[in-house]
Amino acid sequence: MRVYLDNSATTAVLPEVIEAMLPCFSEVYGNAQSVHGFGQRAKAIVERARREVAALINAAPGEIVFVGGGTEADNLAIRGIAAAHDDGHLITTKIEHPAVLATCQALEQTGASVTYLPVQANGIVRVDDLRAAITDDTTLISVMHANNETGVIQPLEAIAAIVRERRERGQKHLYLHTDAVQSVGKIPVDVKRLGVDLLSLSGHKIHGPKGVGALFIKKGVRLAKQMTGGHHERDRRAGTENVAGIVGLGRAAELARLHLDERRERMRELRDDFEQAVMARIAGVQVNGDAQQRVPNISNLSFAGVDGESLLIALDLQGIAVSTGSACASGSLEPSHVLTAMGLAREQVRGSLRVSLSALTSRQEIETALAALEETVARLREMRPDDEAASMESSLSRFSPSQ
Amino acid sequence: MRVYLDNSATTAVLPEVIEAMLPCFSEVYGNAQSVHGFGQRAKAIVERARREVAALINAAPGEIVFVGGGTEADNLAIRGIAAAHDDGHLITTKIEHPAVLATCQALEQTGASVTYLPVQANGIVRVDDLRAAITDDTTLISVMHANNETGVIQPLEAIAAIVRERRERGQKHLYLHTDAVQSVGKIPVDVKRLGVDLLSLSGHKIHGPKGVGALFIKKGVRLAKQMTGGHHERDRRAGTENVAGIVGLGRAAELARLHLDERRERMRELRDDFEQAVMARIAGVQVNGDAQQRVPNISNLSFAGVDGESLLIALDLQGIAVSTGSACASGSLEPSHVLTAMGLAREQVRGSLRVSLSALTSRQEIETALAALEETVARLREMRPDDEAASMESSLSRFSPSQ
Repeated sequence: MRVYLDNSATTAVLPEVIEAMLPCFSEVYGNAQSVHGFGQRAKAIVERARREVAALINAAPGEIVFVGGGTEADNLAIRGIAAAHDDGHLITTKIEHPAVLATCQALEQTGASVTYLPVQANGIVRVDDLRAAITDDTTLISVMHANNETGVIQPLEAIAAIVRERRERGQKHLYLHTDAVQSVGKIPVDVKRLGVDLLSLSGHKIHGPKGVGALFIKKGVRLAKQMTGGHHERDRRAGTENVAGIVGLGRAAELARLHLDERRERMRELRDDFEQAVMARIAGVQVNGDAQQRVPNISNLSFAGVDGESLLIALDLQGIAVSTGSACASGSLEPSHVLTAMGLAREQVRGSLRVSLSALTSRQEIETALAALEETVARLREMRPDDEAASMESSLSRFSPSQ
Repeated sequence: MRVYLDNSATTAVLPEVIEAMLPCFSEVYGNAQSVHGFGQRAKAIVERARREVAALINAAPGEIVFVGGGTEADNLAIRGIAAAHDDGHLITTKIEHPAVLATCQALEQTGASVTYLPVQANGIVRVDDLRAAITDDTTLISVMHANNETGVIQPLEAIAAIVRERRERGQKHLYLHTDAVQSVGKIPVDVKRLGVDLLSLSGHKIHGPKGVGALFIKKGVRLAKQMTGGHHERDRRAGTENVAGIVGLGRAAELARLHLDERRERMRELRDDFEQAVMARIAGVQVNGDAQQRVPNISNLSFAGVDGESLLIALDLQGIAVSTGSACASGSLEPSHVLTAMGLAREQVRGSLRVSLSALTSRQEIETALAALEETVARLREMRPDDEAASMESSLSRFSPSQ
């Protein structure tokens, strides 16, 4: 049995989504910019998808710009605002996705100044830190909604209140962006309630296709186009519309909206049962990140005396897919920047594993993973040389039982 | 019967391509960056597609970077070279696709200087003009391979020879880019024979999916990453790989390579028969662009005394899809910049229509379009007010019979 528990990296496309996409390849294959009927039919289904994506996050359809994925959405938001406002000062956090972090770092090379906020041990930014970091030159605050490694949710509403305050005091060109790639489809995401000006989302994290995403740009917010060419997407992103991808994202968004509560409760129950069983059956485990302020599908665990990478590979040999941190950061040998920013010890970071569920995850998959995890952790701990075993004894005592 | 003759705007996806893509949605759905088996299987099919795209243009697989489409490929090439070489001086032509033109114009705003070369009446750039335009500061020459409105092929080999000459005389950082979106799959495209350093291509112009393309970057050519985030595509383009799209592009590239000669001959025969019949049956028509140096699937015609947009709409009502110029420029009310640069009179530009074929175009479609075109042109000419009819008489005489 193959067990897929790496749904924060990507998800399988739902049959309903594939069904919606198929006609776009061979029937409604027109270029949505074309004047003729083939083009207008393509345009009509693109606009229907736009309404669905807007409905999922309580935006207006005209506020949705389709792009090639979450990374492009983040790049367009951050580079777009920075370029439209002469770079200035940006604020973000140390635990953002590489699409945000690397983009902020790139902008530092070309003149922007950036503050990277720390997080607390539970993975949450201190709102007071953020308030103190804002200067008169600050043009953009980019704080992710849910973290991709821990699932921890950031206090966006409180941050938005601060932004509103500064705006009311005259700082008109201060904007709030959030990378909501990991929260959309998992918890309610309402751009008005959150108070954000820009929000990134991705198709393949919500059982839609890869290669498509969207950026919410609140009406009235001006940003500089990053991909130049034709006047697509109301002149905010050039390039022939990926009709099939957009339609797939639209259908995935519709299903996510219709089944949000049911999916959320199911994932939460499975995830919580999984964590309880892990804690009961395996010694020296801790859950990383705030236990309450989390999306319902992610469990980030540290196993004392075990190397997460070895655990991942051993589980993979048994057909079980999990991850250590972000897929986008894999290949780099650096320890998780997220867990490091939370103050975890080097060994706790090295011993970490991310288990992430989706709407398709079955109880059987969880049971299979649990049994394999229990057996594999024990085996890996036994295989360790004596001197490491001794240090494990001491590290075990440093692990708190439930965090 | 629906007749689709707008294949330069976009093409239908071939059944073989859809078949190749389908498993990527529900079976091989892993993130190609993931360490586990789901990820590695996705990575394997991405790399297979990379080899197919490379084979189509005689490149090495490591020289292919997958992106979100032709527009992104052009942006990455032009912005990437400009940013890696402190902007400097760029040379392009007045007939490029908006993805190139608008990008060059955007770079002018941020410090680059750009020379826009004119073209001759046949739509071809004068190589001597290009030679004369190069300065010691020139970092990039971007000249399209085949024009998207007329199909006219530019003398890239001669241009590459000039670039080589300058390099040998010490101008090491001078690069040649070509937007080959309209030539790939239509005529042989060999990056070594053409002598280019960068080449853009797109999936949906060769019966692959929309939302995916590739940029050939010759080994050793350095450019600045435009989409920042993870270290995807050998750190040249961040963002989760669009596995299904890439696999679709790979399969489309494979089919284009295997059937190139056969498709080319078939399209050329149908296109030439079409043009001959148009000339024989309709008075006051001219073919725009060089009759020989053209891809085999495009026919750009000007009908005296007829408004191209009206003709397009009248044909659309009969289920026949053609276009006036580029789909990417539609929505703008400006007359074709390509035909204008070729020196066509305003009325000739206004009376132009692009008919573009694909490997799927049938003789029946061509016959249906011909009959409709003959009848519609006659009807539109009859409907014109008397004073316009008089001016048509005079404009007819200005039209040369065959080009």
